[in-house]
Amino acid sequence: MAKAQPVLIAGQWRDSDQVGSFEPDNPRTRQPTGETYPVSSIAEVEEAIEAAAVASEQLLAHYPEGVAKFLEVFAERIEARRDEIVAMAASETGYPAAPRLNDIELPRTTDQIRQAAQAARDRSWSMPTLDTASGIRSMLAPVEGGVAVFGPNNFPLAFNSVAGGDFAAAIAAGCPVIGKANSSHPGTSRLLAEEALVAVTEAGLPPATVQLIYRTDHEVGKRLVSHPLIGGTGYTGSRHAGLTLKEAADRGGKPIYLELSSVNPVYILPGALRERSDAIAEEFQTSCLMGTGQFCTNPGIVVLVAGEQTDAFVEAVSGRFDAAAVGTLLASGVESGMTASVKTLTSAGATLVTGGEAEAGEGFSYSNTLLTVTGQKFLADPETLQTEAFGNESLFVIAAELDEAVEIARHFEGNLTGCVYSDTEGSDDAAYDRIAPLLRRKVGRLLNDKMPTGVAVVPSMNHGGPFPATGHAGFTAVGIPASLRRFTMLQCFDNVRSQRLPAELQDNNPMQIQRLVDGVWTDAPTG
Amino acid sequence: MAKAQPVLIAGQWRDSDQVGSFEPDNPRTRQPTGETYPVSSIAEVEEAIEAAAVASEQLLAHYPEGVAKFLEVFAERIEARRDEIVAMAASETGYPAAPRLNDIELPRTTDQIRQAAQAARDRSWSMPTLDTASGIRSMLAPVEGGVAVFGPNNFPLAFNSVAGGDFAAAIAAGCPVIGKANSSHPGTSRLLAEEALVAVTEAGLPPATVQLIYRTDHEVGKRLVSHPLIGGTGYTGSRHAGLTLKEAADRGGKPIYLELSSVNPVYILPGALRERSDAIAEEFQTSCLMGTGQFCTNPGIVVLVAGEQTDAFVEAVSGRFDAAAVGTLLASGVESGMTASVKTLTSAGATLVTGGEAEAGEGFSYSNTLLTVTGQKFLADPETLQTEAFGNESLFVIAAELDEAVEIARHFEGNLTGCVYSDTEGSDDAAYDRIAPLLRRKVGRLLNDKMPTGVAVVPSMNHGGPFPATGHAGFTAVGIPASLRRFTMLQCFDNVRSQRLPAELQDNNPMQIQRLVDGVWTDAPTG
Repeated sequence: MAKAQPVLIAGQWRDSDQVGSFEPDNPRTRQPTGETYPVSSIAEVEEAIEAAAVASEQLLAHYPEGVAKFLEVFAERIEARRDEIVAMAASETGYPAAPRLNDIELPRTTDQIRQAAQAARDRSWSMPTLDTASGIRSMLAPVEGGVAVFGPNNFPLAFNSVAGGDFAAAIAAGCPVIGKANSSHPGTSRLLAEEALVAVTEAGLPPATVQLIYRTDHEVGKRLVSHPLIGGTGYTGSRHAGLTLKEAADRGGKPIYLELSSVNPVYILPGALRERSDAIAEEFQTSCLMGTGQFCTNPGIVVLVAGEQTDAFVEAVSGRFDAAAVGTLLASGVESGMTASVKTLTSAGATLVTGGEAEAGEGFSYSNTLLTVTGQKFLADPETLQTEAFGNESLFVIAAELDEAVEIARHFEGNLTGCVYSDTEGSDDAAYDRIAPLLRRKVGRLLNDKMPTGVAVVPSMNHGGPFPATGHAGFTAVGIPASLRRFTMLQCFDNVRSQRLPAELQDNNPMQIQRLVDGVWTDAPTG
Repeated sequence: MAKAQPVLIAGQWRDSDQVGSFEPDNPRTRQPTGETYPVSSIAEVEEAIEAAAVASEQLLAHYPEGVAKFLEVFAERIEARRDEIVAMAASETGYPAAPRLNDIELPRTTDQIRQAAQAARDRSWSMPTLDTASGIRSMLAPVEGGVAVFGPNNFPLAFNSVAGGDFAAAIAAGCPVIGKANSSHPGTSRLLAEEALVAVTEAGLPPATVQLIYRTDHEVGKRLVSHPLIGGTGYTGSRHAGLTLKEAADRGGKPIYLELSSVNPVYILPGALRERSDAIAEEFQTSCLMGTGQFCTNPGIVVLVAGEQTDAFVEAVSGRFDAAAVGTLLASGVESGMTASVKTLTSAGATLVTGGEAEAGEGFSYSNTLLTVTGQKFLADPETLQTEAFGNESLFVIAAELDEAVEIARHFEGNLTGCVYSDTEGSDDAAYDRIAPLLRRKVGRLLNDKMPTGVAVVPSMNHGGPFPATGHAGFTAVGIPASLRRFTMLQCFDNVRSQRLPAELQDNNPMQIQRLVDGVWTDAPTG
């Protein structure tokens, strides 16, 4: 068996108790990067879980100040090692080092980590609730045990298992993290975990606050998310693997937050098309092809009403797709996934307008692909025609008339986002009023006149939505502090003596946070 | 097949499409009440689900004002028919008409309903979050589809499927309810549903806002909670049936909130026992035998440290149990459950101090039962020795020394509550500081110097806890408005035109509610 890179368990970088190994590819060359990574054994994973459980108990003494300090030091260290991290991520993902990785994703990553540090200090998000007459008080507190984080392939930094959104949320909530690196960028994860461990030491946190493994077999993965000592899981990735983990976690009574597939329907109403067809075509092209279409909120389905201007719009987009450069895809599996998904869609009645070819650009790639299908065919097999093609592809559903476009809205599965473009003069308003209420309940985020890519990290963001886009429509994976709530439990204190209460709930409000006291939000002391 | 009582489907009381029937018993006479109730077919249940889905869409136009009005009218109508409802509940449950049903549970029920009406109007609990710079806003909104409510046997009014806590929470969140009556009080549920339907009509709500069935077979129950058109489920009852439903709901990606078993550990530390043994024995007796011990938060396990005063305490409690009246149990199954659970406990090493006899009082009954077990034996088989005996029973775990008492705290499953009694002079403080942090993370509500029965309906209450006490430790079944959040989804609005936003999120704050605007809670308008 090849000698593999070390894992990070209980504060030590050490040789893995490996049961196999793998080599990631460089997507631009279609060749292995030359680094070998281990597949961890059940014993190794259980050791990590047990170490995290101990750290979970110990972390309480360092919360929030030590945890916030760790996050701040970690952000600084990522920035200090920026060039090496960006170069590694570029070689593993095929994304351009600049602007994508260096100027967009890395700053976003450190910004999230710093927002998380601030949230750890400002515990208002834990909803401290005090009822003075009954002597009962409650708040959200970290779940018991570590949190397993499975990062996706498409954000090697901002959603990395040991530096991204789920990681920052779990840590800021007060939970140790066991990162399961995405197999397409293990080296990036390793560099980030190296910096995390130094920051853990510097902040004086328990050594097992951050651990890293690279891959497990399916049974070990199921054990990880359902283990009696695990606190919860954050997973972003494919629907099939996610649902397998969900079943195991559910059976063990363990919370798991999943972000799975989403086709992100976009309605472009007739008035909007009449008013600003070119501008919308440009917005669509940018949104659909950016990052070679590898975004969770990529606009995978566009609904239009049949007519001359729709024909012209399809032709315009098709021309733009042909003229645009073909980007590199993240992995061999993404390329083959595109081939399979496009075949599924055409077999179900969709027509290829342009694209449909693998190996069409540098490295792993697939030509920019546009398909169309009639509303009638879509309604005959909506499940198949909502198959996600993860990449630079979109399916335009052409409804025969408005009624059919409305009916289509009833048949969407749960999605992360839904958009409606309408004109500014009011001619689309009646159509909007029929479509938006239906779409509203199928999606986590409803947009007007705007494409769904671009997920701002603000408190009101919802990067979530009804199943099967996620596992629970009440929670979001992006947006701080809301995303922290996933890794908490509700703790109520009844008649607990004053000096024994956590700081968040003490009469004099020593943390000076906003609290819900007798039904009113205030930062005033009680009593 | 016997002619059965009608079901309430889509606004109509009508004969059930029944596949069987059952007769509830009068617990005091051990004889059937004489009324027959139907077991609903899959077709009937699917009709109810589809009607609720339509009502779910229609209800949006009546929310919140129509919904709040319905709840207020319903509360008034329950009070107007109070005598008949109380008499029916008494005959079906064996509870005393007064004070329990008439003076405690019915007022609690209507109070909850009125609190829910107020919460529907004051939408601050939906956490309206506005970020003015990004143009993004979000709030919690009702899930799509009806909510199935499975009520428990032990609160025929306050947790009734069509009038209790889960019902009121789901309705106030904006969701229609499909009530599945508890089989031990179908008549009480029928009377309440009759009043609910009148109130629905008076408030002008969609007829399928409240529906009622009485029983289904297991496969139909699983279909109900996992149906594509159901919005979610609230279930309170036995662990076995609850986990069967959970598996089905989880597989379908549907939220289900369960309240299952709980033994509610109580630590009585040596100093407290030395200081006020008699008072604690009295509090314990009252809490353990009240309602014949049939409370979710009944103190089923008490942890003590071995010694003379503990021996005296056991003797005192035993004497009190012998002297106290033996209450009536809710159903034949509760009586046989006591027999089975006590046998499980003694087989695992517990010793019967007193009690242990079925049919020891009027009707279904079991003698007031006290068991003890050593800490050593408990630690050898903690899972079996945490078997819940639902009724007038408790197991005293006698630790050899404090270290063992601390270790025991590590082995509790998730529970609704945990209590610690300590002295007022400080001699127990060191022990408290070792035990409380461990117990804290195993329970939803931590109490000091107070028995766990008595669940105040206040915003800070948590009637929840880690699995397997419930299905998700982040939510509570009691406490308004927090309990409403179970039946919501997070809805984000991105760049949505101002006049299209829901009232909660509009610039001028027309509902005059507290909102989180740019990180600060305020009721001021924005813009």
